[in-house]
Amino acid sequence: MEMRMTDQQPTLRVRDIGSFHVGGHMVRLEGLPARVRVSTAGGPVHPIDPNGEVMAGQMYVQYVCLAEPKSPVPLLMWHGGGMTGVNWETTPDGRPGWQMFFLRAGFDTYVSDAVERGRASWAPFPQVYPEAPYFRTAKEVWEEVFRFGPVGSWHTDPARRRTHSGLRFPAAEVEAFLCQSVPRWSCNDVATQRAYDALLRRFDDGVVILTHSQGGNFGMTAALHAPERARAVISLEPSGAPDPERTDARLVKDVPHLFLWGDYLDQHPFWLKSRTASERWRDSLRDAGCAVTWIDLPAIGIHGNSHALMSDDNSDVVAGLVLDWMRRQL
Amino acid sequence: MEMRMTDQQPTLRVRDIGSFHVGGHMVRLEGLPARVRVSTAGGPVHPIDPNGEVMAGQMYVQYVCLAEPKSPVPLLMWHGGGMTGVNWETTPDGRPGWQMFFLRAGFDTYVSDAVERGRASWAPFPQVYPEAPYFRTAKEVWEEVFRFGPVGSWHTDPARRRTHSGLRFPAAEVEAFLCQSVPRWSCNDVATQRAYDALLRRFDDGVVILTHSQGGNFGMTAALHAPERARAVISLEPSGAPDPERTDARLVKDVPHLFLWGDYLDQHPFWLKSRTASERWRDSLRDAGCAVTWIDLPAIGIHGNSHALMSDDNSDVVAGLVLDWMRRQL
Repeated sequence: MEMRMTDQQPTLRVRDIGSFHVGGHMVRLEGLPARVRVSTAGGPVHPIDPNGEVMAGQMYVQYVCLAEPKSPVPLLMWHGGGMTGVNWETTPDGRPGWQMFFLRAGFDTYVSDAVERGRASWAPFPQVYPEAPYFRTAKEVWEEVFRFGPVGSWHTDPARRRTHSGLRFPAAEVEAFLCQSVPRWSCNDVATQRAYDALLRRFDDGVVILTHSQGGNFGMTAALHAPERARAVISLEPSGAPDPERTDARLVKDVPHLFLWGDYLDQHPFWLKSRTASERWRDSLRDAGCAVTWIDLPAIGIHGNSHALMSDDNSDVVAGLVLDWMRRQL
Repeated sequence: MEMRMTDQQPTLRVRDIGSFHVGGHMVRLEGLPARVRVSTAGGPVHPIDPNGEVMAGQMYVQYVCLAEPKSPVPLLMWHGGGMTGVNWETTPDGRPGWQMFFLRAGFDTYVSDAVERGRASWAPFPQVYPEAPYFRTAKEVWEEVFRFGPVGSWHTDPARRRTHSGLRFPAAEVEAFLCQSVPRWSCNDVATQRAYDALLRRFDDGVVILTHSQGGNFGMTAALHAPERARAVISLEPSGAPDPERTDARLVKDVPHLFLWGDYLDQHPFWLKSRTASERWRDSLRDAGCAVTWIDLPAIGIHGNSHALMSDDNSDVVAGLVLDWMRRQL
């Protein structure tokens, strides 16, 4: 491949870039009072009727398709809770994201924003969603969900924030990471799963599903719903997993699964509890004869990774492990 | 350039794909009651404190940079109200969007989601935004904002919807277009302008600004704030424009401006009123010696365009007019 002198990276040969929505249905708003709209600063004040049909439940998917992909199947990239596909596009310190990594590795990429967020939009509450959303605070991001520092280590003053020892997340750029956050609801799991399942039905020749955090449960469940289309399932620190008491793992016995975990998981009870569900599902998969790989990064000598594995300063190293595993499956 | 046999389109040679946020600042939420969070279906119920710092005011920008751009400056693509950058990525009937059109024409593209929407996220109301958002109904989209059909022509049953005679919008796919809609507020003009201005400051060598609808006022104002960086301003059916009584058009006398309008503008009073602001600013620009091009598509024999010019079935024809104009300016 041709090399550019400026950045030593080969040029990507791209066939198409675009996007689409899947799912979505019309819902009717009723009983709302009339209001006015101002469309633009200084523009006319316009009476409007907010009652009527609006769209709800759609998911957004953006694709980059290569002129000559090396992988026989595309890579679907599913973000975690309170986040969008932006997680895969860039790192907080401005390095190339995993989307570019896997494009350069020869995969067509499909990066989605799940129902309720980002370019998927969201629907009115309490008229359509029964509850108000939740805005994750910087403290919760730092100390709990993404494990940048121990409990009590967040501080408004950047100079007084503390991180876990050896942290590989670029903590000085945490504000850029917080810009990627979006509000989240707890009431949209069914609609979200339905949209992911609808996405899979577009790919007759199969896909690789790569998920992060909240996306993990959706990805493993999508594979159960369409095992013939799921060529591999990769779950980065899944915050949940199917329940083996209620789900037959033999449905996906021919679908290889990779679980991958970072560091500091013992630093917050949320993660100790969340990890248990994946361990149970892993064991059930193995009992069913499924090929399961379980990587604890610290156990193979890679220390310091946060929950934001694709944002950490060794994100390409972690992506490389995922790529090596995928190449062995495809 | 190499041609593919499959789709007769040349391969794009791409140097980089990624994204970033501009603007954004931390705000503090206080006085909210404690609540619980369920992160994943069947996962642990977790107590959380919703009070603390969250990010607000950021804008999202996604770029595709070519290995060998033909244009000396990139193209910034700014959507309209209640919409996101998705408008530029695809058409409701699945044809390539204007982003691909201008990539193929040799422009690096920067497609943004303005403050309050899409991957820019939004901030809590009434704590940060003073008011609730507004969800545009399908009827309002159809009859008023996007001018697909006359007043009274929207119907829940697709078979009973009527369009304007000769409409070029793919009306059978209006649900796909509605999937692109996002909630909108009327209170974020200042934050949005600030973010657009911050975006321009990243481009020392200048840009072309291409806007639609609500984006028009932001684009024309951004040029006033940084005329040395705005190499050209293209406003597709701007819903507003700077006020010549309060703004000196001579600031942008060296910045060529293109205004472009579709059909059926006389079919709704909203558009007759909105267009007046642009006419006044156009006249003021001309008086200041600015090179202004004003295109009414019907006047040059192109009939049937809705407000969604980049979605209409002749979207490539309209894009071609814009491209021809740009080539004469750059």
